[in-house]
Amino acid sequence: MRVLITGVDGYLGWTLAVHLAARGHEVAGIDDYSRRRWVGEMGSQSAIPIAPMAERLHAYRERLGQNLRFYKGDLTDSAFVLDAYRSFRPEAIVYLGEMPSAPYSMRDVQTAVYTQTNNVMGTLVSLFAMRDAVPDCHLIKLGTMGEYGTPGLDIPEGWFDLEFRGRTERALFPRRAGSWYHQSKVHGSHNVEMACRIWGLRSTDIMQGVVYGTNIPEFDGQPALATRFDFDQAFGTAINRFCAQSVIGLPLTPYGKGFQKRGFLPLRDSMQCLTLSIENPAEAGEYRVFNQFEEVYSVMELAERVQRIGQEFDLDVKIHPVENPRTELEEHHYAPDHQHLLDLGYQPTHDMDAELRLVFRDLLPHRDRIEERKEAHFPDIRWDGTRRRSETLG
Amino acid sequence: MRVLITGVDGYLGWTLAVHLAARGHEVAGIDDYSRRRWVGEMGSQSAIPIAPMAERLHAYRERLGQNLRFYKGDLTDSAFVLDAYRSFRPEAIVYLGEMPSAPYSMRDVQTAVYTQTNNVMGTLVSLFAMRDAVPDCHLIKLGTMGEYGTPGLDIPEGWFDLEFRGRTERALFPRRAGSWYHQSKVHGSHNVEMACRIWGLRSTDIMQGVVYGTNIPEFDGQPALATRFDFDQAFGTAINRFCAQSVIGLPLTPYGKGFQKRGFLPLRDSMQCLTLSIENPAEAGEYRVFNQFEEVYSVMELAERVQRIGQEFDLDVKIHPVENPRTELEEHHYAPDHQHLLDLGYQPTHDMDAELRLVFRDLLPHRDRIEERKEAHFPDIRWDGTRRRSETLG
Repeated sequence: MRVLITGVDGYLGWTLAVHLAARGHEVAGIDDYSRRRWVGEMGSQSAIPIAPMAERLHAYRERLGQNLRFYKGDLTDSAFVLDAYRSFRPEAIVYLGEMPSAPYSMRDVQTAVYTQTNNVMGTLVSLFAMRDAVPDCHLIKLGTMGEYGTPGLDIPEGWFDLEFRGRTERALFPRRAGSWYHQSKVHGSHNVEMACRIWGLRSTDIMQGVVYGTNIPEFDGQPALATRFDFDQAFGTAINRFCAQSVIGLPLTPYGKGFQKRGFLPLRDSMQCLTLSIENPAEAGEYRVFNQFEEVYSVMELAERVQRIGQEFDLDVKIHPVENPRTELEEHHYAPDHQHLLDLGYQPTHDMDAELRLVFRDLLPHRDRIEERKEAHFPDIRWDGTRRRSETLG
Repeated sequence: MRVLITGVDGYLGWTLAVHLAARGHEVAGIDDYSRRRWVGEMGSQSAIPIAPMAERLHAYRERLGQNLRFYKGDLTDSAFVLDAYRSFRPEAIVYLGEMPSAPYSMRDVQTAVYTQTNNVMGTLVSLFAMRDAVPDCHLIKLGTMGEYGTPGLDIPEGWFDLEFRGRTERALFPRRAGSWYHQSKVHGSHNVEMACRIWGLRSTDIMQGVVYGTNIPEFDGQPALATRFDFDQAFGTAINRFCAQSVIGLPLTPYGKGFQKRGFLPLRDSMQCLTLSIENPAEAGEYRVFNQFEEVYSVMELAERVQRIGQEFDLDVKIHPVENPRTELEEHHYAPDHQHLLDLGYQPTHDMDAELRLVFRDLLPHRDRIEERKEAHFPDIRWDGTRRRSETLG
């Protein structure tokens, strides 16, 4: 299939391009290197060095025997996006071109507005370009489990039968996100659902859990094929940040009680799930929602697990919970459904320990790169609008 | 109270400024005259001539014995908005500064992106400015009944007890809007709810029905105090457009079957309701929702009523349904709650006929202005993305 990936220079985007090409798909990508810029703004860098796009494309051709068709540009530029869709004529678009950090979006009014503009208007522009250039194309839109928030209820996959005063109707499960970034994903979901309903577009909206990991087999150990790995307070997600902290001897810093539960999945599972969505498209006019994660864990459980694996590598890993810079529930019911992808054949890895060992193996050679941006680990962007580094608790 | 109105040059904004000043409130306003520009883009103009802002402000001072503090600027400009809030220190902000037309937002990718950027980012900028300048201020945010769509269920006022698999939680009633404009209001509602939850701001989100009417007693018949009245396909709402069609002998054009039901309220009731919200603020941290309309009518019922009143003015009014340019349900259950404002003391007008007579009285002297922009009446912006004038049905 012809698959176009927006945000192809990012953590998931680049990995997916390599994964799909190895499966024989024809891949195009759009990016303007924003992710490199955002992480630089946070005073950080990818722990694993990533090649400039020209080298990436060269290594891709060498390893995979095909060109990645690359369009450099801004996803909110409607003429540019329409041209790209018209020239490549994708059968599937995987929309990964959004700013993915909650703390970055909470930093100040500029980053909040930037986040919602980039994410919501980028998607909206793509919906118009699909309508006008490739109306049968399947949009795989990356949302987040965080769209639902933590409502104290089980969470279905997007739709449910809403019973109210004796009448019943299929409805969107209420969303209640906890950051401007997460809200941008909620807004995007609403826009995409409407485009399916009004224009007959087809879309799978992925409520993805937190992804962790450094590697997929298709990278074949080649440095120019490697994907980025972030550990700063904004772009480093929970498990990845814990691993990076471990390799340079920093204590792991769960926020608050650490009882917050989230769905997680390894990078290779994310690729497997996205591929299942691509290869099993939604129907014309259908807006379907997949909750995409392997298993639910509390943040504290994960810290303890990273600690244990770190010890196998002779690292002295401590856990020091810090004040929670976020406004969020630290203890809550959490039982989201995640059956749709299993029904399509998703086979979860179920071996987090093995995955974590790979992460340590990949990170240890780059401990100097993590060490030199050590300051970027410490959270100081607070949900109340102030900037103050979180104190260690108790 | 010190009340700041964004969009003070608009249909509701100007009317509210006059209404509040007459009640003794101290009023400030922000605008950059966008509404005049949008209506111009649609090839139309206000049926009732409206004065330039300088003349409006002069007449306001003469009639009401106080100055309206006017800030000219763009609501997405965060430094400008923060300065305005810091200098006026409003106790209530009535956010009317959004682009209010569904057809305009559906015209093309540019107007869709403009609508969501102006509306969503404007509100977001105001939330930050409130947090930083006037955290106790009460935000009255104008949404629309259209945020809910037509779900085939009763519609509560924003919140409801969601029972799901044996657990119950207070949740936001699902929104499912039918245009990029209506979606912008949904996105705004989600952002405002989060700001109340995370920052402790206070807000009333008004799900308003369709407003009609030309006048309130406080205008005192003075031309420089009059508010605008639009009749074009984008900015003219159902009843207002029907009245304008009647006075120049055009048939009334309900869309499709005309069985679509909506909540409506006269301009004076909108003023009464907004005043009740202002004078009875939400609690700190509270996000409350009011469904604001007087009564539910079908579009066809309204056309027949306008026809009847038009006949009293010796006008020969015909009803010619046209193809529906929108994608919407034409027959549906519709029973939204609207109790909260009644509980605060809202006394509905309940005399639509009298209100319509006033509209005819105010429009008849300006039939030449409506006649000269006759073309602007005919709908040609279609929800499927094409531009084609709707044919008369049957």
